[in-house]
Amino acid sequence: MPPCMASETCDMKYRSKMKRSLSKLDPPELDFKPLVVIELAKNVKEETKEWLTKKIMDKKKDGGAQLLIKPLMKSEEDESANIYLVGASAKRLLIGAESVGLVKECDDGSMRSFIYNNRKEYINFREDGADFLTMAECQYIIKHELDNLRAREEKIIAGYPQAKLYPGKSILRRLQTNGIMIQIFPLHDTEDLKRLGHEWYCQIKVAFQPIDEIRRYFGDTLGLYFGFLEYFTMALLPMALIGIPYYFFAWEDYDKYVIFATFNLVWSTVILEIWKRWCSTMTYRWGTLLMKRQFEEPRPGFHGVLGINPVTGREEPTYSSFKRQLRLYLVSLPFVCLSLYLSIYVMMIYFDLENWALEYHREHQSDFSSIMLFVPSIIYAVVIEVMNRIYKYAAVFLTSWENHRLESSYQNHLILKVLVFNFLNCFASLFYIAFVMRDLKLLRQSLATLLITSQILNQFVEALLPYWLQKRYNKKVKKNVKLLKESTDLVEQIHLEKEMGAYPGTFDDYLELFLQFGYVSLFSCVYPLAAIFAVLNNITELYSDALKMCCVFKRPFSEPSASIGVWQLAFETMGIIAVVTNCALLGMSTQVNALFDDSKMDLILIVAAIEHALLAVKFILAFVIPDKPYDIQMKLARLEFESMEALKQQQQMKLSLESFTEDDDAMDS
Amino acid sequence: MPPCMASETCDMKYRSKMKRSLSKLDPPELDFKPLVVIELAKNVKEETKEWLTKKIMDKKKDGGAQLLIKPLMKSEEDESANIYLVGASAKRLLIGAESVGLVKECDDGSMRSFIYNNRKEYINFREDGADFLTMAECQYIIKHELDNLRAREEKIIAGYPQAKLYPGKSILRRLQTNGIMIQIFPLHDTEDLKRLGHEWYCQIKVAFQPIDEIRRYFGDTLGLYFGFLEYFTMALLPMALIGIPYYFFAWEDYDKYVIFATFNLVWSTVILEIWKRWCSTMTYRWGTLLMKRQFEEPRPGFHGVLGINPVTGREEPTYSSFKRQLRLYLVSLPFVCLSLYLSIYVMMIYFDLENWALEYHREHQSDFSSIMLFVPSIIYAVVIEVMNRIYKYAAVFLTSWENHRLESSYQNHLILKVLVFNFLNCFASLFYIAFVMRDLKLLRQSLATLLITSQILNQFVEALLPYWLQKRYNKKVKKNVKLLKESTDLVEQIHLEKEMGAYPGTFDDYLELFLQFGYVSLFSCVYPLAAIFAVLNNITELYSDALKMCCVFKRPFSEPSASIGVWQLAFETMGIIAVVTNCALLGMSTQVNALFDDSKMDLILIVAAIEHALLAVKFILAFVIPDKPYDIQMKLARLEFESMEALKQQQQMKLSLESFTEDDDAMDS
Repeated sequence: MPPCMASETCDMKYRSKMKRSLSKLDPPELDFKPLVVIELAKNVKEETKEWLTKKIMDKKKDGGAQLLIKPLMKSEEDESANIYLVGASAKRLLIGAESVGLVKECDDGSMRSFIYNNRKEYINFREDGADFLTMAECQYIIKHELDNLRAREEKIIAGYPQAKLYPGKSILRRLQTNGIMIQIFPLHDTEDLKRLGHEWYCQIKVAFQPIDEIRRYFGDTLGLYFGFLEYFTMALLPMALIGIPYYFFAWEDYDKYVIFATFNLVWSTVILEIWKRWCSTMTYRWGTLLMKRQFEEPRPGFHGVLGINPVTGREEPTYSSFKRQLRLYLVSLPFVCLSLYLSIYVMMIYFDLENWALEYHREHQSDFSSIMLFVPSIIYAVVIEVMNRIYKYAAVFLTSWENHRLESSYQNHLILKVLVFNFLNCFASLFYIAFVMRDLKLLRQSLATLLITSQILNQFVEALLPYWLQKRYNKKVKKNVKLLKESTDLVEQIHLEKEMGAYPGTFDDYLELFLQFGYVSLFSCVYPLAAIFAVLNNITELYSDALKMCCVFKRPFSEPSASIGVWQLAFETMGIIAVVTNCALLGMSTQVNALFDDSKMDLILIVAAIEHALLAVKFILAFVIPDKPYDIQMKLARLEFESMEALKQQQQMKLSLESFTEDDDAMDS
Repeated sequence: MPPCMASETCDMKYRSKMKRSLSKLDPPELDFKPLVVIELAKNVKEETKEWLTKKIMDKKKDGGAQLLIKPLMKSEEDESANIYLVGASAKRLLIGAESVGLVKECDDGSMRSFIYNNRKEYINFREDGADFLTMAECQYIIKHELDNLRAREEKIIAGYPQAKLYPGKSILRRLQTNGIMIQIFPLHDTEDLKRLGHEWYCQIKVAFQPIDEIRRYFGDTLGLYFGFLEYFTMALLPMALIGIPYYFFAWEDYDKYVIFATFNLVWSTVILEIWKRWCSTMTYRWGTLLMKRQFEEPRPGFHGVLGINPVTGREEPTYSSFKRQLRLYLVSLPFVCLSLYLSIYVMMIYFDLENWALEYHREHQSDFSSIMLFVPSIIYAVVIEVMNRIYKYAAVFLTSWENHRLESSYQNHLILKVLVFNFLNCFASLFYIAFVMRDLKLLRQSLATLLITSQILNQFVEALLPYWLQKRYNKKVKKNVKLLKESTDLVEQIHLEKEMGAYPGTFDDYLELFLQFGYVSLFSCVYPLAAIFAVLNNITELYSDALKMCCVFKRPFSEPSASIGVWQLAFETMGIIAVVTNCALLGMSTQVNALFDDSKMDLILIVAAIEHALLAVKFILAFVIPDKPYDIQMKLARLEFESMEALKQQQQMKLSLESFTEDDDAMDS
């Protein structure tokens, strides 16, 4: 029997079985709403497909995920046969919502963890609860359940003896690492997406973004990112507006500068503190502020010898912490230092080029030569961007190779590596110009060139180029899909989406904002226009990011998050560095120096005193402004009080039971 | 009927009733171990006594505390009739241990919240669990239960119509505020105390303190204080040892000084970080690290109109936050500023005196005049101590008057007020000498005088004087008690203890260490001997504090605490200020100035750079050193994992139940 025939009979058998089990577990196909798409490799054995389907549909108590799964197409000749749609009954999703710990609003206006048995108490819960969860939440629940589909007694993935399993190993992760599963992604809701796009970026008007809608569709992490982007842009506006007269009237007096710099520094502290409050208000409304942290499982890429985890007592890969430290300090750290050195080396070349351009201009004094003056800066800006991107790949590789057990520790090491390099790479030349060459005019010029070039480059590389490529590609796919026999809208949509790029996460977007914040705040008193460029860039960034999310990338899985995490710390650190640089710049400015012509020592001491006072003000402000608004604090306190009361009542009930038995004892004796 | 007779019959009735209820609730008197003493006012009505006794003995479900209570003496003519002993059965105490959330070690070595039903699983639990809880823990439980004895339907305290009650009001607090109850204190265990004293301070030997024993007897707060005192003394040793050669060989070279100052600054950061680890190891062993925070009730002194608490929904006094802010900013803040101004004014008088003494010495050049040189400093040190103490009273009064709802917020406002004033009062003159007069020689002399004088004064006022007074008083009491008819050891003990002063808390002790840390670290590079004096002082402080705890004061109620709280922050802030002052001192020293004779500007820039680098190192160190040792982290992670697992299993059980009913539904339809 040729292999193709074998697979055909296998498939027949499998489909009939599947149909049976589907009918048993679930109402007719009409009710099946596809939420998540799984694409298997082309040559996957039927045996494996069958095993996986069974696993996903099996009852929880039998070690399954108790979800629904269907192949996309009936015809075997087509590659679509390896695409599966995953869904679940409304009830299953609600129970899943309880197990992932979703928090929803109750009828009395408070936010509570969703509990299936109390489902009637939640706002917007109708009859069967079909519309209670958003599609993004349903997809998150399904992803969570699939990720937690773990091996029990199975030693291998059926049909693949090389894909080893052990009790507790996530099956989906093993499928992915062995190349059996190509990808898993959530489906777009085309109607909803169109509506969202219309509200969000299709009209050019002065309005806030529909943050809650964005969050509803893309999940909390992206809702927070767009919320932060919008907030940050609004917060920069005062700085931008105040900067305009400084630039145009060339207010370079000592006192006006001091006022501007002080305003900037205090303002940047205040906006970061207020963001925390704003953020907690949003995440309280979304329910993520109250979500309990789940126990963190090892990240997918983590590998090592099988051993016993001291915390969980489970069998899982272990990797000696000592070896990781060795890799960290003997390879990663030297590599980072080398990269920093290289970055400084490139900077020195830039200064040589700059000198050469100046020389050339002085010799020729032509139009061409005056344009040439800007060329080194532009080249340098491009080189910086390229270096940042190359370094990022290296950092990802190195951090993976360090083999961190937890995703959070992986992320922290990656962010630290990338931040340090990006900071030095972007700002080293500015620091050099400011504090070694002490040429404030050149500083202003370099700052402007770097800022504007990097913004234009970023917009182009991140959004417009992929958008254009995607558009061209879509046409091709549509043509191909039309040739298929059983083509429906859904089939076309899935074929389009499965070829879209995966959204790489908010890392690059936050990094861009972080560097922009650096350009704006580090040397703000030299170049007051920086804030305006930042505001303008962020407005276009809003549109290009929206476009990117809706049209260029696959829909990302929604991830609950309660804050922007480590970026808050990064921005605050930048604020502290900005105090130091601005005070130093102020002390170096010719206007201030003219004032203290006779006693340079007094000048420096005064500048140092101002710097320390500003830093103290920053810390006191950060300490005094509460991280959460009063009403959120009250609501959280109320929830905590309720849970404590419940516990106490439980104990008192026990106590009165005890006293009953005590009486009985006394009576008996 | 004369009143005395009325009270007699009343008392007869009451005692017979009491005997009956005692016999009903509890085994014979032999089993009754007195733990806590309640002293009522002399003229308290019998009706009230009866009511209170009933309240304390009533079942939990009837709104009582379910404890045991006995009057100290049978004879009515004596005042002792108003002294009551409170105890509880072993079982009641164990159930109380569960409700306050005590954490105990299990047989498998892990620390877990005590649960009465699983009592057999804990280490050292024998038959009836009589020795399972320490006496301090039992007393804490009884205190907690008495504090939580709250009014239900009662509108007044029986016999006192002016002592109003409302549902939820703590009865004991009302008794205290209305002067019906004079005091409540835990009894000493004379045997145990003798043993502890012998181990702790009776022998003069080089050994660590028995911290675990101290904690067992006096509770966690005091255990932590003595642990910190010991740790801090040990941590100062290296600084002291390194300081000796600097002082004796007068190593005033630039490089040696820099090394000394840098070592001091890095060392002070490291010791504070390591203390956190050390502290968490101790409190893990004691179980307080894992104790759940209880809901904070309003503090006893809080008063206001009855209203509804938005968090608990209960009726309780409310006080407008706006009024409190007004009091804070319009009265307290101006008062603090005025006090600070006064302190600086006194300082200026001191400098006038100092000048006068110098003048006098220059004119007379006698032995007397050279002694006179030290007089202003000594007077100033005494004045500083006196001002600190007066200010403390004012701060306590003001903070009470601000009417904070929570004890924690009261404490924070008090500590902030006292710290700011004490800091300025103690260090203003030193700052003035260092940075305005720039007289490093005078600075060294002032520092030495202030440090030594304040240490001697403190030891005397805090421990030795009260000890001597107490000794004299004890003799008198013993004589009086001997005259009583039914005098036993217990009666004598209670009469002695009830007249002892109440221990005012660890505030003053920590404050003393905080100021000492300031003397040692702020100007360490000027006076290397400071650390030695601090070490010597702390060794005697250890003994005098031990004496104070064991012989001078009443036994304090044990309070669970997991860290030294806000003092950690205070010490860390002092460390940061120390970096700034030391760098400035270094920049001002003649040796360093000689090195940079031609370019003062470079000098200041270099000093500023060093300062910033040191501050950065401090922050990085604080960030990099984990607050808890690895094994404690693992144990905490294990506990968290277990509770998450338990939750998940509960949910999965529910899920499988659901799926059963789902199947049933499908079968039905």
